[in-house]
Amino acid sequence: MTAPGSGPTRVVIRGLGEIGSKAARILLRRPQVEIVGVISHQVGEDLGEAVGVDATGLKIVGEPQELAGLEADICLLATKQKVAEVHDEIAWALDSGMAVIASGEEMIFPWAAAPDLAESIDRRARAAGRAVLGTGVNPGFVMDVLPLCLSSACADIERLEVTRASDFSPYGPLALRSLGVGLSPEQFQRDVETGKVDGHIGFDESIGMMARAIGWTIDYVRDELRPIIAKATRTTPHVTVEPGQVAGCEHEAVGYSEGEPKIVLTHPQQVDPAAEDAQLYDSIRLVGVPTIEMEIKPEIEGGTATAARMVNSIGAVLDAAPGLRGSDELPLPRITPLGR
Amino acid sequence: MTAPGSGPTRVVIRGLGEIGSKAARILLRRPQVEIVGVISHQVGEDLGEAVGVDATGLKIVGEPQELAGLEADICLLATKQKVAEVHDEIAWALDSGMAVIASGEEMIFPWAAAPDLAESIDRRARAAGRAVLGTGVNPGFVMDVLPLCLSSACADIERLEVTRASDFSPYGPLALRSLGVGLSPEQFQRDVETGKVDGHIGFDESIGMMARAIGWTIDYVRDELRPIIAKATRTTPHVTVEPGQVAGCEHEAVGYSEGEPKIVLTHPQQVDPAAEDAQLYDSIRLVGVPTIEMEIKPEIEGGTATAARMVNSIGAVLDAAPGLRGSDELPLPRITPLGR
Repeated sequence: MTAPGSGPTRVVIRGLGEIGSKAARILLRRPQVEIVGVISHQVGEDLGEAVGVDATGLKIVGEPQELAGLEADICLLATKQKVAEVHDEIAWALDSGMAVIASGEEMIFPWAAAPDLAESIDRRARAAGRAVLGTGVNPGFVMDVLPLCLSSACADIERLEVTRASDFSPYGPLALRSLGVGLSPEQFQRDVETGKVDGHIGFDESIGMMARAIGWTIDYVRDELRPIIAKATRTTPHVTVEPGQVAGCEHEAVGYSEGEPKIVLTHPQQVDPAAEDAQLYDSIRLVGVPTIEMEIKPEIEGGTATAARMVNSIGAVLDAAPGLRGSDELPLPRITPLGR
Repeated sequence: MTAPGSGPTRVVIRGLGEIGSKAARILLRRPQVEIVGVISHQVGEDLGEAVGVDATGLKIVGEPQELAGLEADICLLATKQKVAEVHDEIAWALDSGMAVIASGEEMIFPWAAAPDLAESIDRRARAAGRAVLGTGVNPGFVMDVLPLCLSSACADIERLEVTRASDFSPYGPLALRSLGVGLSPEQFQRDVETGKVDGHIGFDESIGMMARAIGWTIDYVRDELRPIIAKATRTTPHVTVEPGQVAGCEHEAVGYSEGEPKIVLTHPQQVDPAAEDAQLYDSIRLVGVPTIEMEIKPEIEGGTATAARMVNSIGAVLDAAPGLRGSDELPLPRITPLGR
């Protein structure tokens, strides 16, 4: 923990894709943080120019070794989705004395996908005296943190339902492939069976976090991928979808407790939703006492909000007990305009 | 803090009005808590019978002295609204070794209305090694905790707006008087000027908590009470309002920062809203990057949810650092079906 008055919090950014770039732009406007190192593939570029703002005088490096000896408080890690893919990057940051905030979907609740690696990260974080957190918007907020917060106003909850209907237009070929966009309905079904179409990553993480926080036992999770078939032509910078083809995927996961559906998470994502006036929203329904029905319209845009959630977590992660943490273990989140 | 396995958390309830009774009914269904004492005016009655469920074998006492020597972990205090009115009850609980959760509006953020008393409570709580928390729905959730949680997804916030449109039909003569229900519009204005009509208690508390949590400086708060005039006859068990009379009050408070309205809280409350199809809802609008617009419809019903927020805070308060705490300092809230 950096004591007040001891200077700004020193941040390293690893990964300067969409999320990392947005996090950098937010950080550059916050007075009590300073970006002291950036590792990404735009080697040699000035950080500011690489993210579309004024030059900062800080050059991007390609390899972590080039930051050897740098003193920093925390690393914002915006590289990969899976725990196995970011484990070594987290280990490097911890061994370099930094706390870590990761945006990878599985890192929101790493105990779901990779309990052994989660244990390894936890042990290393405790040894380093630093905390590690995964955060984002989905998973990491709409389908877990926000329903938990709302649940605090309930005396009883029979079932918890969240739907996030979002626009997939900004995404490129690789992401489109994972949703089966542009396929025929028949090919979509075949690709679901072979795993080429795999939809959203994060349901197990959202369900895992909520079950842990509330103390529910979820016996198993069943998921289903349903094609959203275009009735009109859909266009994005990356793809054109003709009527009859797949415009997106409605991915649903249901966590069962004692045979009853306890947590129902539905995530329809599609390209060019305006072409058919498809509504975009985040909705949460807690069926209980009282029943609470919430809607955010339009849905919280994922990119900026994920970067904001990372930056807004800096103070809480620096103050957290050492170890691997979930958002359910940290204080009520909030924007931190000063940087921490 | 009660260690796991050391038996249920022992709870004392002080005040068995609407909120205290609802809290008792929730507690009686939760396995890891036990109500060990109740102080209220229904002296000698069985707790269960007093709150409309099966007999519990626990008799209600009238005075705290009658619980002398009782060992308890935490006191749920549901008596009065103002810090000055509950200060001595909190002191008694702390001196008896209990943590405290209070439902009084000013206790949500006691530093606003009574900084000296807040300081006194904080000092006493630290000496006792216990935490004290005020919680509820409004103030305590819709206009402060929930906007803070949502703000964590924002990179910037220019202005924060919350409207809670709620049904005042359940309330009796004293509460109706504070809203001016049944008055002529002219008398309403006169009673606002003399303070007989004073509207909602809690704006300063909600604004104070958010400003502290976010790090905003609010220079001053201006509030206004506007009459809601009936166009149709409104009826409740407590009052009949004729067309042209006051059916409720729209109370608005605006917190300014550097001359700009930064926090705008609006709370229209009226009797028999269905008579004119008045909509009931909680809405939060964060004007920023991204702008987030949230609506809960109908509004979260205040009574049950306030009792639930109290009960759901037990574990967090027992685990909190000793002292006077705000919800902004505690972990992300959630329902606790086991009791803690």
